[in-house]
Amino acid sequence: MCSLPTSRQPLRRVAVTGGTHGNEMCGVYLVKHWLQTPGELQRPSFSAMPVLANPAATAACRRYLGYDLNRACTLTFLNSTATPNDPYEVTRARELNQLLGPKGTDQAFDFILDLHNTTANTGVCLISEESQSSFNLHLCHYLQLQNPGLPCRLLQYEPPRAETYSVESVSKNGIGLELGPQPQGVLRANLFSQMRTLVASTLDFIELFNQGKAFPAFEIDIYRVLGKVDFPRTADGDLAGTVHPQLQDHDFEPLRPGEPIFKLFSGEDVLYEGNSTVYPVFINEAAYYEKHVAFLKSERIRVSVPALP
Amino acid sequence: MCSLPTSRQPLRRVAVTGGTHGNEMCGVYLVKHWLQTPGELQRPSFSAMPVLANPAATAACRRYLGYDLNRACTLTFLNSTATPNDPYEVTRARELNQLLGPKGTDQAFDFILDLHNTTANTGVCLISEESQSSFNLHLCHYLQLQNPGLPCRLLQYEPPRAETYSVESVSKNGIGLELGPQPQGVLRANLFSQMRTLVASTLDFIELFNQGKAFPAFEIDIYRVLGKVDFPRTADGDLAGTVHPQLQDHDFEPLRPGEPIFKLFSGEDVLYEGNSTVYPVFINEAAYYEKHVAFLKSERIRVSVPALP
Repeated sequence: MCSLPTSRQPLRRVAVTGGTHGNEMCGVYLVKHWLQTPGELQRPSFSAMPVLANPAATAACRRYLGYDLNRACTLTFLNSTATPNDPYEVTRARELNQLLGPKGTDQAFDFILDLHNTTANTGVCLISEESQSSFNLHLCHYLQLQNPGLPCRLLQYEPPRAETYSVESVSKNGIGLELGPQPQGVLRANLFSQMRTLVASTLDFIELFNQGKAFPAFEIDIYRVLGKVDFPRTADGDLAGTVHPQLQDHDFEPLRPGEPIFKLFSGEDVLYEGNSTVYPVFINEAAYYEKHVAFLKSERIRVSVPALP
Repeated sequence: MCSLPTSRQPLRRVAVTGGTHGNEMCGVYLVKHWLQTPGELQRPSFSAMPVLANPAATAACRRYLGYDLNRACTLTFLNSTATPNDPYEVTRARELNQLLGPKGTDQAFDFILDLHNTTANTGVCLISEESQSSFNLHLCHYLQLQNPGLPCRLLQYEPPRAETYSVESVSKNGIGLELGPQPQGVLRANLFSQMRTLVASTLDFIELFNQGKAFPAFEIDIYRVLGKVDFPRTADGDLAGTVHPQLQDHDFEPLRPGEPIFKLFSGEDVLYEGNSTVYPVFINEAAYYEKHVAFLKSERIRVSVPALP
């Protein structure tokens, strides 16, 4: 069972960030649109603020210029003294911390919804750094109920360095919204529309929460990241193969020991050698090649979520 | 009817170039593989040379660093004096011209097959700058016959500046091979395998040609580029919408006047206002946003191709 929420204080200061990665186009163009026409982000009890998180990378249509912004929001970076050699994104992380934080303080925003796309076939994927935040689980359940045609999963990720680093970690609570598959630098109308609907549902959920609505208890499957799997590589570190056609596009589906995960350029298959079923996520995500990640392994866990009274 | 070939001289000097755009991964990794194990490119009458066309952009996993290499192989660039301010790709174009040309001379390679990927749903698309080269049409027909499961179309493109500029234009004859859809920076095993098969078929065709095999006459549909269509834009030049879901992924299918082509962020549809049916190609290709191209319009033409006796 997950932890109970610590309070039911209304969420008044909410931000929707897009373009944290400048080539993930749904968030980029939703935020640009809302900066001109913010009415869609208004609810009776609050108005969400649209923020173009990484304007320089967006202008260049690149993930980042000098450092991944979604790894730059650590207290170490945010609280260190600026230097002329800081990567652009470290400087920008400090600006976002001024706007939406300061991280870890009472002055920080109540909630950040950070918008992302992936080249992987994830469908709708909520990413929560927090340990099973009850609020985020209720949000995921609400999105599932409101959008039955869109599979919506929650992926729980504990930063290995034990220090949160994402853009949404600047606020008191937050969540990342991934939508895929979409190539980098491409804006597909169907995914744009889906993300717009999901943001609207998220704001509706916050509004109901602020109004004091009771949300009943439920059970839900979540996915907890266990680790990463790199591509097969040659002696000099280059790719020796790529994701196997039987694994490609099968995000969140069970992978059993002995099933193929890679196809080598020599023609051979590489089989999964783990000793239990896992659930691969972010399979063949373009941005993860440089991070030496062909996919993440996750386990599926059934969680009992108490009511929000 | 297309022009007759001017000669049946065997093609001895053949190159297969990949990574002309450094984030189009099938060609990048096929060429890297063949540089280690060139046997696949050998035939009795010739050995094709694998060339990684843009190594610096490949290392950065970007289309190009300073200038699109596949627009840099003009005689103007190739024959001008080098300066310290030349973009990397202009310098690299001159190197390729030394290796595979010089363009427009008898010393140039006989044939270059240049490998590309696109985010558009083109399937297999051969791009020929030449005006209905009989050799290229026979090659396309051969690929169609050898690979019945893969739709293979020939797109004929006349450079608007009346000066050829592609990498394959350095050789006496050449063709571009596009395969999509694949996101930039992603290597999908199925497309990698398809491209490998298509290259093998191309080399088999050249071998048969060199052996003096007679290829009978046939008729074929080709697609001739008529012009480009830009995205809808705001007053300040940014996107005001994107490709309509009814057009997205329908490359090479007929688009009739009055059918939707764009979905504006405001929710409205933009309809195609031409007065005849066209065949859109490279619909929503990531690299063409900066070129202000949402898709190319083409016309479908039935061509009678004489026998290669």
